[in-house]
Amino acid sequence: MSTLVPLRDDLVPFLEPHLPRPLNKSKGLPFVTLTYAQSLDSMISAGKGKQTVISHLETKTMTHYLRSKHDGILVGAGTVVADDPGLNCRYKPEGDGVLSTPRPIVLDPRFRWNLTKESRVIKTATDGTGLAPWIIVNKGIRDQNREKVRMVESIGGKIIEIDNELSDNKQFQWSQVFTTLYSLGLGSIMVEGGATVINSLLEQPDLVDSVIITIGPVFLGNQGVQVSPNSTVALQNVSWWRGIQDSVLAGQLKK
Amino acid sequence: MSTLVPLRDDLVPFLEPHLPRPLNKSKGLPFVTLTYAQSLDSMISAGKGKQTVISHLETKTMTHYLRSKHDGILVGAGTVVADDPGLNCRYKPEGDGVLSTPRPIVLDPRFRWNLTKESRVIKTATDGTGLAPWIIVNKGIRDQNREKVRMVESIGGKIIEIDNELSDNKQFQWSQVFTTLYSLGLGSIMVEGGATVINSLLEQPDLVDSVIITIGPVFLGNQGVQVSPNSTVALQNVSWWRGIQDSVLAGQLKK
Repeated sequence: MSTLVPLRDDLVPFLEPHLPRPLNKSKGLPFVTLTYAQSLDSMISAGKGKQTVISHLETKTMTHYLRSKHDGILVGAGTVVADDPGLNCRYKPEGDGVLSTPRPIVLDPRFRWNLTKESRVIKTATDGTGLAPWIIVNKGIRDQNREKVRMVESIGGKIIEIDNELSDNKQFQWSQVFTTLYSLGLGSIMVEGGATVINSLLEQPDLVDSVIITIGPVFLGNQGVQVSPNSTVALQNVSWWRGIQDSVLAGQLKK
Repeated sequence: MSTLVPLRDDLVPFLEPHLPRPLNKSKGLPFVTLTYAQSLDSMISAGKGKQTVISHLETKTMTHYLRSKHDGILVGAGTVVADDPGLNCRYKPEGDGVLSTPRPIVLDPRFRWNLTKESRVIKTATDGTGLAPWIIVNKGIRDQNREKVRMVESIGGKIIEIDNELSDNKQFQWSQVFTTLYSLGLGSIMVEGGATVINSLLEQPDLVDSVIITIGPVFLGNQGVQVSPNSTVALQNVSWWRGIQDSVLAGQLKK
C-alpha cells in the first residue's frame, strides 16, 4: 500500500467543477462520478487479475482526494475477486481536517466474491480505517450465501437484494442500482471499475455526471483489460490536467 | 480538407526537444518520429476504412508543423488503401517562411495501393503542393505492376524494391526500410500510421527516436482500429501539452 503524497495545489480548482453536488435529488439519483486510470492503449491492467501500477503517486493521491468527496465507492465483482482492493480513503485534508471515507459498494449479482477476514475491505472495516461494505446481489442470492452474509453483517455491512435480475454480463440495471443506493442515503457515488462496469456506464449519460480519467504514459499491450464502450461516446466540457507523469481528463458524457 | 489555424505559440517549445536532429548518422539511420491521433480508447478510427476526425484543428495544425520538420512521411499500405490521405505539408511559417513538404513514402510490400490520377498523393504531386511518392515493395513486385510503376515514375516518384521479403502482416524489416531511406537522402522520417505500422514500431525502441501522440476526448468504441502493441511498452522523458480539446504526449520509447 503506497503512501500518498501531498495533493497538488492546482488539482483542487481543476477538479472543483466536477465534484458531487445535489444535481439529481428530484430524480432520486445520486451524483455519479466515473473514474479510473488507464494506459495509452486504454488498458486498466496488463491482464486479467494482474494488478498493474499505471498512475503516478500524485494522481493516486488525487483518487483518494476524490474518494473523500463521495459517499460511496462502487466496483464490480470482477475487481474485488481479481484485485482485493482497499476501498477506503486515505486522503486527509491538511490542518485539522477530518478523514472522510466512503462506503465500499460491490456490485456482485451472484455473490462471487469469496471474502474472508483477510480481504482488504473487511480488514479496513474491522480496524476502523474504512467502512463495512454493501454488496448488491440478485434476489435469492442472500439465502444461498449465509456464511458470507453473516461475516458482512457482523461488521456492520449490508447485503442489498435487487428486484430485477442483474446479469453480470455487462447488462446491469444501473438506474435501479443507483436509486436504491440513493434511497439508502448515498448522495454521491464514485465508480472505479473494473472494465465491465466502466464500459457499461460509459453508455449511460443520463446516470453518470462526471468522468475523470488518468492516463499514464505506458502501453500495456493487447493482452490487457481494455476500456472501450460498444460504440462511439463523445465527451463534453472537457479539461486536462498535467502531472509529472500522467495526464488527467475531467469532463462529462455528452447526452 | 480542413484549413489550418495559426500554430499555438507554446507548441514550439513543447515540441522542440522532440524534433529531428542528426542522431543516428553513424548508424546510417534517419531520425524517426512516430506520431498519430487516438481516441481515449486508443482507436485511430471508428472502423476499418472509416475516416474519423479525432483531433482538434489546432493539433491538426501541429501535425502539419511536424511534417515541415521531416524529410519524409511514411504510412502503411492499409492507410493509403482505406483513407486516400494527402501526405503533404500545408503549414507555412509566418512571415516569408518557405513551405517545406516531406516526401510521401508508402510501405506497400505487395503494391496493393490502386493509385489513380485521382489519388490525393498523386494529385498533390501533380499540382506542385506535394512531392511524388516513393513506394517500398518486395523484390519482383515492380515487374508485376508496370502500369502503376509508370504512373509513379512519370511524376518523379520512385518504386523501391527491398531485398529481404517484407511481409505486410506486422513483420516489417524496419532497419532495412530505414537504412534504405537514409541512403536515399532522407535524414528524418515521420511515421503516421496505420495501426499495423504503429503497433509494429512501438516495439522498435532502437529505431524510433520520438513519439508524439494526440489524444482526443472521445471513445470510438470497440469496433475501432486500435493501437496497442503485443506487450508492455514504457515511455521516458514524457511531457504533455494541453490544447482546447486534446492532450498531446511527447516522449521516447524506453530502451
